[in-house]
Amino acid sequence: MYELIKTENNARRGKFTTVHGDFLTPAFMNVATAAAIKGGLSALDLHDVKCQVMLSNTYHLHVRTGEQRIHDFGGIRGFSKWDGPVLTDSGGFQVFSLAKLRKIKEEGVTFSSHIDGRRIFMGPEESIQIQSKLGSTIAMAFDECVENPAEYGYAKESAARTARWLQRCKQQMKICNDAPDAVNPHQLLFGINQGATYEDLRIDNMKEIADMDCDGYAIGGLAVGEPAEVMYDVISAVEPYAPRDKIRYLMGVGTPGNIIESVYRGVDLFDCVMPARNGRHGHLFTWDGIINIGNQRYEDDHGVIEEGCGCPVCRNGFSRGYIRHLIKSGEMLGMRLCVLHNLWFYNTLMERIRNELDKGTYAQFRNEYVKKLDVRI
Amino acid sequence: MYELIKTENNARRGKFTTVHGDFLTPAFMNVATAAAIKGGLSALDLHDVKCQVMLSNTYHLHVRTGEQRIHDFGGIRGFSKWDGPVLTDSGGFQVFSLAKLRKIKEEGVTFSSHIDGRRIFMGPEESIQIQSKLGSTIAMAFDECVENPAEYGYAKESAARTARWLQRCKQQMKICNDAPDAVNPHQLLFGINQGATYEDLRIDNMKEIADMDCDGYAIGGLAVGEPAEVMYDVISAVEPYAPRDKIRYLMGVGTPGNIIESVYRGVDLFDCVMPARNGRHGHLFTWDGIINIGNQRYEDDHGVIEEGCGCPVCRNGFSRGYIRHLIKSGEMLGMRLCVLHNLWFYNTLMERIRNELDKGTYAQFRNEYVKKLDVRI
Repeated sequence: MYELIKTENNARRGKFTTVHGDFLTPAFMNVATAAAIKGGLSALDLHDVKCQVMLSNTYHLHVRTGEQRIHDFGGIRGFSKWDGPVLTDSGGFQVFSLAKLRKIKEEGVTFSSHIDGRRIFMGPEESIQIQSKLGSTIAMAFDECVENPAEYGYAKESAARTARWLQRCKQQMKICNDAPDAVNPHQLLFGINQGATYEDLRIDNMKEIADMDCDGYAIGGLAVGEPAEVMYDVISAVEPYAPRDKIRYLMGVGTPGNIIESVYRGVDLFDCVMPARNGRHGHLFTWDGIINIGNQRYEDDHGVIEEGCGCPVCRNGFSRGYIRHLIKSGEMLGMRLCVLHNLWFYNTLMERIRNELDKGTYAQFRNEYVKKLDVRI
Repeated sequence: MYELIKTENNARRGKFTTVHGDFLTPAFMNVATAAAIKGGLSALDLHDVKCQVMLSNTYHLHVRTGEQRIHDFGGIRGFSKWDGPVLTDSGGFQVFSLAKLRKIKEEGVTFSSHIDGRRIFMGPEESIQIQSKLGSTIAMAFDECVENPAEYGYAKESAARTARWLQRCKQQMKICNDAPDAVNPHQLLFGINQGATYEDLRIDNMKEIADMDCDGYAIGGLAVGEPAEVMYDVISAVEPYAPRDKIRYLMGVGTPGNIIESVYRGVDLFDCVMPARNGRHGHLFTWDGIINIGNQRYEDDHGVIEEGCGCPVCRNGFSRGYIRHLIKSGEMLGMRLCVLHNLWFYNTLMERIRNELDKGTYAQFRNEYVKKLDVRI
């Protein structure tokens, strides 16, 4: 249940209540693709970096370990030992980006697993059934994420199909939540807005799905190669048509600057692999911009990644020089420390954004940081 | 300073006092090759797995990041943030196992770095100078570790040279400890017994180095491919000639069974990459034997690695099924969890050994566990 606490222009400060705990918005979900954060972080570490919501990937868990097995462990939360809210994606994005030999029909999609090549069929019902077994707090509707650039006619047809799929997802969600063996009988469902970069398609689609009374609304199919300005324009175009009393989630976004701009346009929820992926390559977020800890200039640097940072790495005094040594030596610990710092940074960024909204100073904050945080220094 | 607290036949219960803290013996040193435990463990994690002493490798730190740089970070302890005792090996073992195009002379060894091929000279003085810069609690003498099997004449000549090198190490250690910029002016030096598998050579060598009044004595050049029984015979042969009032360290050993047998023969200190390396492959030590968590039979196993285990993994309820999933998915977290468990197991094994010695029940303990712990189940 989304509660809108305060606004500053289009930006929204809120709270989302779930059976697995509440979280404050704007929020960033920490991505644990296969029920683990890449870089060697466990559910316990997620608490240490102030994570509010974990996100896991339906496709990955389906093709590898299987949802029935995870169900029997008490769902993704029992399996991973993360005791807070979890959002699962629908598998749609991976089916369209990772899987091979894809065939799309009204019923759903047939594709080959990228692990062992076996043929798999996934439609709205299957996706929801899997997510129900995973027992996440929030399930995502099964959608087609079209490539960028997309041809207008195809984007229109696809968005319409995705809207029809959402209706089927809703029906299936009800069936799953009513099932006696449901891990989470209160599982929520978010619909996904599509329509490529065509604002009229996006708006029509948002109007259509807004009527379906989902528990939240996502904007999907962005951050797939289009310029950031195009993405911002799409968000600004659809925002007036997204239900005001529902949480809004921008999928797969993004840089700190992207997040600041999107919050400014009315988005409440984000996820991105960036902090973990960049961390594994030694790219570290700071309030002055992004540093590459592999640079030779950090070789003799006795300071922490960022002075005053409260993350488990900086707080314990691990130096830039030591972390550089670990990254250059290929030590797993180097990746772990960098991912810990970056996730802390992202979760702290969201905390800061919430504080600025509380104070009514978000516009100034945006002006000061929107460019700065994305610059490599 | 070694204090012998109690004996049970040849087995010894003791305590070793250093400027960086005391540790109880028998003890196992946790190997942080390049100033980090492989598997993504930090110095903070070492405390969590009951590590008493960290071991780092002089060769690796010399060829990669360099001892002067680490010196300027406050030595290996300031660099890694491990605040307990640290032992550094001399580099000898790696020079003879990893480095290429090796040329050995009375002065020392010229070799090519395995990283970038550059020619490096290392003799006793250089090894001690490097270890002094690293500022470890305990430095090891520079020795030649001959291959197994070794020709008698060569083994004899080599052991004699290693003994001459020890004399030079002692002189150099004094110079280094007196230097104004010494990180640890109280650095200790352990001599190393060599002589391949020839008991007469081993005994002669031990007699010779025992007179040199080192801070401790190691048995080197074992566990290099000879049968375990041969290793045990060598230990039993030299033990009577090792000074009773000095700590005894068996280098690079070994399995839990090897450790139990060696403690039985009078060894106080151990190190081995096995718990971390095996952990990274999903091979886990338990009190019932070794399990391979990658086995399909653990797929649906909801239990922890070992019931009643207090390690950070079992204590927090991570299941065998989840860990198997992580290892099979290639998730770094799987390796980290397995290494945490295995190091905890080794450090707990040593704790148990000490308790049995305290109670005078070590013989029974040995009978019950010496075979069991090494068996794959």
